[in-house]
Amino acid sequence: MHRVHFFGILVLLALFASGVGAFGQSAAELDVMPLPAKVQVGSGALKVDSEFTLGFSGFREARLDRAGQRFLVQLHRATGIPFGQSIEDPAKAKLVVTTDHESKPVQDLGEDESYSLEVTVAGAKLHAATPLGVFHGLQTFLQLVSISPEGFVAPAVSIQDQPRFPWRGLMIDSGRHFMPLPVVKRNLDGMEAVKMNVFHWHLSENQGFRVESRKFPKLQESGSDGLYYTQEEIRDVIAYARDRGIRVVPEFDMPGHSTAWFVGYPEIASGSGPYQIERSWGVFDPAMNPAEEKTYKFLNDLIAEMAKLFPDPYFHIGGDEVNGKEWNGNPKILEFMKAHGLKNNAELQGYFSRRVQELVTKHGKIPVGWDEIFVPGAPKSIVIQSWRGPDSLAAAAKQGYRGILSNGYYIDLGWSAARHYATDPTGGVAADLTPEEKVRILGGESTMWSEFVNQENIDSRIWPRNAVIAERLWSPEGTTDVASMYRRMQTESTRLEWLGLTHRSYKRLMVQRMAGPASEEEIAALLVLTRALEHVKDYNREFDTGAEPTSQTPLNRVVDAVDPESEVSRKFSMNVDEFLVAACKDGKVAAELRAQLIIWAENDGRLQGLVQRSSLVKEGAPASAALSQSAELALAALERIRQGLPLLDAMKKQQIEALNGFESQAHKSQLTIPARGAFQKLIEAAGQGIGCTPPK
Amino acid sequence: MHRVHFFGILVLLALFASGVGAFGQSAAELDVMPLPAKVQVGSGALKVDSEFTLGFSGFREARLDRAGQRFLVQLHRATGIPFGQSIEDPAKAKLVVTTDHESKPVQDLGEDESYSLEVTVAGAKLHAATPLGVFHGLQTFLQLVSISPEGFVAPAVSIQDQPRFPWRGLMIDSGRHFMPLPVVKRNLDGMEAVKMNVFHWHLSENQGFRVESRKFPKLQESGSDGLYYTQEEIRDVIAYARDRGIRVVPEFDMPGHSTAWFVGYPEIASGSGPYQIERSWGVFDPAMNPAEEKTYKFLNDLIAEMAKLFPDPYFHIGGDEVNGKEWNGNPKILEFMKAHGLKNNAELQGYFSRRVQELVTKHGKIPVGWDEIFVPGAPKSIVIQSWRGPDSLAAAAKQGYRGILSNGYYIDLGWSAARHYATDPTGGVAADLTPEEKVRILGGESTMWSEFVNQENIDSRIWPRNAVIAERLWSPEGTTDVASMYRRMQTESTRLEWLGLTHRSYKRLMVQRMAGPASEEEIAALLVLTRALEHVKDYNREFDTGAEPTSQTPLNRVVDAVDPESEVSRKFSMNVDEFLVAACKDGKVAAELRAQLIIWAENDGRLQGLVQRSSLVKEGAPASAALSQSAELALAALERIRQGLPLLDAMKKQQIEALNGFESQAHKSQLTIPARGAFQKLIEAAGQGIGCTPPK
Repeated sequence: MHRVHFFGILVLLALFASGVGAFGQSAAELDVMPLPAKVQVGSGALKVDSEFTLGFSGFREARLDRAGQRFLVQLHRATGIPFGQSIEDPAKAKLVVTTDHESKPVQDLGEDESYSLEVTVAGAKLHAATPLGVFHGLQTFLQLVSISPEGFVAPAVSIQDQPRFPWRGLMIDSGRHFMPLPVVKRNLDGMEAVKMNVFHWHLSENQGFRVESRKFPKLQESGSDGLYYTQEEIRDVIAYARDRGIRVVPEFDMPGHSTAWFVGYPEIASGSGPYQIERSWGVFDPAMNPAEEKTYKFLNDLIAEMAKLFPDPYFHIGGDEVNGKEWNGNPKILEFMKAHGLKNNAELQGYFSRRVQELVTKHGKIPVGWDEIFVPGAPKSIVIQSWRGPDSLAAAAKQGYRGILSNGYYIDLGWSAARHYATDPTGGVAADLTPEEKVRILGGESTMWSEFVNQENIDSRIWPRNAVIAERLWSPEGTTDVASMYRRMQTESTRLEWLGLTHRSYKRLMVQRMAGPASEEEIAALLVLTRALEHVKDYNREFDTGAEPTSQTPLNRVVDAVDPESEVSRKFSMNVDEFLVAACKDGKVAAELRAQLIIWAENDGRLQGLVQRSSLVKEGAPASAALSQSAELALAALERIRQGLPLLDAMKKQQIEALNGFESQAHKSQLTIPARGAFQKLIEAAGQGIGCTPPK
Repeated sequence: MHRVHFFGILVLLALFASGVGAFGQSAAELDVMPLPAKVQVGSGALKVDSEFTLGFSGFREARLDRAGQRFLVQLHRATGIPFGQSIEDPAKAKLVVTTDHESKPVQDLGEDESYSLEVTVAGAKLHAATPLGVFHGLQTFLQLVSISPEGFVAPAVSIQDQPRFPWRGLMIDSGRHFMPLPVVKRNLDGMEAVKMNVFHWHLSENQGFRVESRKFPKLQESGSDGLYYTQEEIRDVIAYARDRGIRVVPEFDMPGHSTAWFVGYPEIASGSGPYQIERSWGVFDPAMNPAEEKTYKFLNDLIAEMAKLFPDPYFHIGGDEVNGKEWNGNPKILEFMKAHGLKNNAELQGYFSRRVQELVTKHGKIPVGWDEIFVPGAPKSIVIQSWRGPDSLAAAAKQGYRGILSNGYYIDLGWSAARHYATDPTGGVAADLTPEEKVRILGGESTMWSEFVNQENIDSRIWPRNAVIAERLWSPEGTTDVASMYRRMQTESTRLEWLGLTHRSYKRLMVQRMAGPASEEEIAALLVLTRALEHVKDYNREFDTGAEPTSQTPLNRVVDAVDPESEVSRKFSMNVDEFLVAACKDGKVAAELRAQLIIWAENDGRLQGLVQRSSLVKEGAPASAALSQSAELALAALERIRQGLPLLDAMKKQQIEALNGFESQAHKSQLTIPARGAFQKLIEAAGQGIGCTPPK
């Protein structure tokens, strides 16, 4: 058997890939995400060549065979080696998978997902109680495989792994922008890769009702612009998800966020109608009528139909953001409130919520909803999804309610991976819960609201940052090394591309579209711009523009082609910190900083041809100028630091004000300059004169 | 109505995109490929925004509606603007499509494919006799749309267009490497974009029989490793092609190239068997037995089945490359030859060919075959596909036979686009044919043999060069401006990416796989290498390697990740010519040359980390060193030219010898340095001293 010195390779990989040389025998060195619960690195490595085979023993089922086929296809993509289609005799296989027993016919919360994986020079063994653990273990094996001086190998390693939380979800909003099936499927592939196990499918919104109802066909016929999933397609997605160990939890948001329902069925609304599909973004007046029995009759029949279509035990009823205007404007509803002693809209919504929860329970499901469904007297079985924050989740847990955290995992806000990584479902107030209470915090969900994403750029808003949230929800609590996280996130990002996710490739296509027929140099300049900048954070985009964006607004602009977190700006900022900590003594880092600043400083000039020729590039012109001018200031500061020429206080102040001005200018293009903090640090360091001790 | 000054934009586009400033009102300025037969550029442009609509009048059919939907999807991809799903009232539409009448139920050779397209500031009109012309005209419109200072526009233009040749094909070899359906479909999309109309599907080979036969199921069961198309899938592809104005001509290659048939049916072979699926590449001994009636019985039944499955009137029977060894080794066959007065193997093959042609004709089809089927006495109805060359095609045409040219369009050989572009079906000897004879030359086909391509890199071997062959076969004979061709080919290459073709994106994925977890700088170095080099040309790859490649050889190496024609090397070579013609006076070009040479010269050093860590990158190390060392010589020569320091003759000779040595060294990695000719020109110019008049 061929032996390679994998340990040495590992050191090299860590050194070359991250530039951060810290090394130990810890799991953090493996390029695996999420990190397993327990890892022991052995010596040597298993060669993965055309002799590699896969075999199953123990419990068998068609789903495991499909997982094996899929594994071989993914291993082929990762290596380019043809492995054939068939699954070999387990006695002879290089990777032997042993499964103890079946999992439940409908995947349930808290099923055993653990696995153990032993890789030696001679072969590998994957063992799991259920197919769910097998799916996870196969993904870990795929992540271990990498190129070496001796071809593709998996390092000798012993892994014992299980998830920290049983509910690890991604929500995709198919309501605001419809997401075609291939988008859903490739994101399920991505979820499988990082061991997420709940696909929360937000299926109805003011802007669209996206599921075929056979009982109430006007829901999709009048409420979706023809963009909805047939029941056959839904079943296809559920089967696809089940094959990957993923539950599908549907959400039908009510009583608000439901304008699209009322286009076909105005009789269940609180206003007088008629209604149109909403094209704008925000919180709107239309809401279901909680005072009429026909509303509950309708919902009873719809929930009955959908409870059958979606086999998962959990059923999401939304419940968020009702502004109450339609209720206040309807005398019958006001009368109803008085008759039932409901003092305000919150109590009215509580009443509605309880009624709907009863219906969901009646049809055999456990209700899930946003914070608002947590009303006095709600049954203890419900699950609260918190958009408000960990405090409200902890409060609910104290009262015996189960919950999942989404506050902090809103990936549509454009936060950094590090910020999401720092969010812990049992952090903050929840850290003080008793163990019994803590168990009620089931996990979390990242939420991909789709105001400003469509099938072209949604992947880039989900990945790779979602892998970091997946790690937070899977790996042990102490997994908090940010440098290791970013290094592994980048590797995982590359792997995700092999699954067909377009989070990296979309950018060049969008850039080419904005540029039209252009020289390579111009395309390069536009790529420099879109790689350096980020879109404005949180929900600032919609309020900053002149013309209010709608669901019909083309998402073809510079702001749509930038990533939520600029990798090049993040690295630049890290380098600035390193440079200043080292008291300017690191010549190599200084040279890298200088080179990057020159590229940015000169980029606006290179972009001018395109600015003249393309209306779309022109929209990014203020941000482009702002980036270049900011970089020029930082470059001058860097030169001062290197030459020991202190910057006068007045100049320093003036330059920092200028930086703020450039940032405001970038906002005109709906963009932000993520390296501006690093630019300011350089200016401040220059202000402190030679020696440049790091600023606070 | 909004007016934009498109004429000015056009000039800008031409100047910026090509660097070649020649400009006139000719069609060559439009970024359209293939160029239309007649173009008149008007003034102004039609705005393409969310108000854009499409309407049909005249003859209607579901296929036209689907073409309209597809057009709107493609226009959406090209612009990012949501256009909705429905087709508007023609009276109000911005683009009105008028079709005179239906085309034939099964698309036939020589059907009317012409169209006219009028674009004005107010709207556009597309008119065609049949849906075939509509498909072509819609593609032309898509190619006209581009970004401008005023958003997306299509320039005012008047186009009268029809093809020069009726047979414009692409052959894909699904025999040697199986090509999954998505590969086939996205290449059909590409064919539609460049107006090709014949998909020649090479479906059987020594390495695999790729169609489900219900009469002879062992063909696919024993002869395909499970990799074949079901009849349902075949029908799906045919319908997909018909929707795009593309005929599907199946090829079943016989009597040679047929080992895979004999695994299940050894009784029709000339040898004694048993047979195995062939794994190697080349011409092999197994051949059908032309002396046994059971062979013809078998073929009769199979052709009957396949003639029904494939509706096209033409049916390809292969016929190429029989080495005759099995015939010579079978006494019964030798006896049969004597009995029938067949003097040699060529006559025996002629006998077989006539018998099979009769069967094809009997089942209602017109036989097509490679040069070898052109035997004395063959019926005049057959169509000869020439791999041998234009001379044999002209000879056949003189005798009244129809033919299509493939010699010169073998895109697997790795030739430049310019070389394919220079190949004309009625060039050479054929130029002297009478008009009546010339008409028998139906067109041509590019051939994508698949020894060294799989689903990952096949697109990169077909596109964008195939667009140039499509232009040769569609556009008027005088369309020969190579600079214009390259400029438009690059634009079209970008457009083809929107169809899902992976000819550009595959490279980065392959590079990441070879590199493993690596720094951005290392990935960049490997990209520089794979963009600078080309794979060895013609069929030299298979004979140069130590271990003979087989169908199981991974295609995951540097040689698999380089393009057939390096765009950066082509531009560098053009720049060298420009620099030398301008007698070194162009400082900007000199600076560009210098910058490129420095990148290449330094690249090998940057790659060393990866060379150490990756066996796959290591395989490319000789070529990487050769590129850098060659570039260093060229850089030194450039410096001498700029400084007016002549290079001694002895040194010059020595350096040119060194260049040749580096090229041989690159061959060790199965690679070639396409810029080496330009490097040599610089060295020779340096040898001529100051003034550097261009070398012959």
